[in-house]
Amino acid sequence: MTEPVRIQAAQLESFIARAFEAVDVPSEDAKVISELMTRADVNGSEGHGVFRLPQYIRRIRGGAVNVRPQIRIEREAPAMALVNGDNGMGHLVMRFAAQTAIAKAKQCGVAWVGAQWSNHAGPASLYATMPLEHDMIGLYMAVGSANHLPPWGGLDMLLSTNPLAVAVPAGEEPPIVLDMATTVAAYGKVKTKAQRGETMPVGWMMDREGQALTDPKRANEGFLLPIGEYKGYGLALIIGLLSGTLNAAAMGRDVVDFNADDTTATNTGHAIVAVSVEAFGDLGQFKSSVDTLARDLRASKRLPGVDRIWLPGEQSHLKRIERLRDGVPLPQALLASLDQLASELAIPRLR
Amino acid sequence: MTEPVRIQAAQLESFIARAFEAVDVPSEDAKVISELMTRADVNGSEGHGVFRLPQYIRRIRGGAVNVRPQIRIEREAPAMALVNGDNGMGHLVMRFAAQTAIAKAKQCGVAWVGAQWSNHAGPASLYATMPLEHDMIGLYMAVGSANHLPPWGGLDMLLSTNPLAVAVPAGEEPPIVLDMATTVAAYGKVKTKAQRGETMPVGWMMDREGQALTDPKRANEGFLLPIGEYKGYGLALIIGLLSGTLNAAAMGRDVVDFNADDTTATNTGHAIVAVSVEAFGDLGQFKSSVDTLARDLRASKRLPGVDRIWLPGEQSHLKRIERLRDGVPLPQALLASLDQLASELAIPRLR
Repeated sequence: MTEPVRIQAAQLESFIARAFEAVDVPSEDAKVISELMTRADVNGSEGHGVFRLPQYIRRIRGGAVNVRPQIRIEREAPAMALVNGDNGMGHLVMRFAAQTAIAKAKQCGVAWVGAQWSNHAGPASLYATMPLEHDMIGLYMAVGSANHLPPWGGLDMLLSTNPLAVAVPAGEEPPIVLDMATTVAAYGKVKTKAQRGETMPVGWMMDREGQALTDPKRANEGFLLPIGEYKGYGLALIIGLLSGTLNAAAMGRDVVDFNADDTTATNTGHAIVAVSVEAFGDLGQFKSSVDTLARDLRASKRLPGVDRIWLPGEQSHLKRIERLRDGVPLPQALLASLDQLASELAIPRLR
Repeated sequence: MTEPVRIQAAQLESFIARAFEAVDVPSEDAKVISELMTRADVNGSEGHGVFRLPQYIRRIRGGAVNVRPQIRIEREAPAMALVNGDNGMGHLVMRFAAQTAIAKAKQCGVAWVGAQWSNHAGPASLYATMPLEHDMIGLYMAVGSANHLPPWGGLDMLLSTNPLAVAVPAGEEPPIVLDMATTVAAYGKVKTKAQRGETMPVGWMMDREGQALTDPKRANEGFLLPIGEYKGYGLALIIGLLSGTLNAAAMGRDVVDFNADDTTATNTGHAIVAVSVEAFGDLGQFKSSVDTLARDLRASKRLPGVDRIWLPGEQSHLKRIERLRDGVPLPQALLASLDQLASELAIPRLR
């Protein structure tokens, strides 16, 4: 394979914005979406950045997504809101939801905002980290945009890899940012293995007879495995109840596979919680405790062969520094698909 | 092994209450603790019910736990509170915290209550289920009372099996109640394997060389493995930050091993979140959606050899029905230790 090409973040961002403008997304909204999608790539969430652009544009052109949504608060109480995304791009809906949660948490100490009639919004950590600059902890959950997981012991794929992200501010250390799917591997990792002609480790997928599935080209003959077996099944279900069912958003058999469908609204559900650290105690003391804990964990004695102990979000933090300096590495195949998209939309190519 | 003996719940509850009264716990508090501990046994959480009684009493007699705590709200905002448990029994502290969260969620839609200077409070699901009768969702997290988990790749046991429980009300179906440790196996399960002379499955524990540890008698030569490898490590860390560090409670190297120590206050941290379903939408519609989802999952086609698909909390629900009717099965060894405790405290035996 040829080497990936480095593209500067600003250049990537403006390309993405132009693409959305070309399909009638208002400039201001295109700017928000492109900033968040670029941030995903910069943070190392490659599966949820510009990689998704052709699909997003395809679904907009197919009429599946509303480019002029009236995103609004449908219901509210002092420490909660239910946001109706009016089938707009998930990035717009969840930025609005996060801002609402932060504002309410300033008043109430804690706030929980759910979203309905939203769409795929990129990596969970984009939204969980939004409260950080307000010295708040952020928690984000969502119903994934395709079902790849059966209940434990079952065969019917009624659950998605429903992700959870939590971001906790630190002092001198980078914030601690957990961003995880509830399956051992995300489906994107399976696709990558298939592209590279590699086999998958035992434990990623199972076939319909209950046997380990290690050939990623046979992925459609089986399903992803949840972390901790029945525990991950339970987590995926609970996250779906909290971010889908509670918001009257799609869950279970109502989830639309947005990879296979360009015309149907997904009614994607998400939830974000903002927790003010200062409501609970002294901010400096909290940050100092997080720093100490991070350093204690990093300084732990290690298993043979382990070079370094990582904190959640630390690898992403280092990627961010490196990519803001050197650009985002884009594989040739992705660049080719973005070139084709540029032709279709009659906008300048990325390079 | 001889058969367990069935003891009626009411009889168990009154025995536990007498034991606490015998060590100067006020009658009203003893009643609350005994009711919750018995509920743990009835629900099938045997590792967190009367099994813990000798240890709780030992720690009270050792001066580690305050029998006359002034449990109070230390800080608050409309949708949050930080409860200072004054080193009282965890059951008392967390019942107070749950009641506070429910009352605040009635006003604000959602409320989050943290606790500091608490103690071991039994199974997580006891508190996560308290909001159910108010048609609320409950979430509970805690810092475990002994560190059994190193950071992923590490050897120093700086983390506990920090549990998470979430309870979601349903309509005709039992509520969905997830109650899980963030390790593949809880430490209690290892102890049970050792008692029975059985080996552990690969994946429960690892030794200090990174090899699978399957002999439970060698448990002190290794450590528990987190679910989903680095994901479970991240979850245990985040739960500890949210329920420990945020509340200025013990976390990381400050966690006291309450199995090995009868004299030191643990400063155990917990958190409970109550979410009003009615704030988000129509209650009947929500419950009906949960029922439909539960039935869809249960009706899934199954893997070969699987007789039944379970919902989280369903097995506990069935145990509860059976044990309320037939009594709680107590192993002979446990009964013997309770008889000895009765002698020490000069109270009537359980049978």
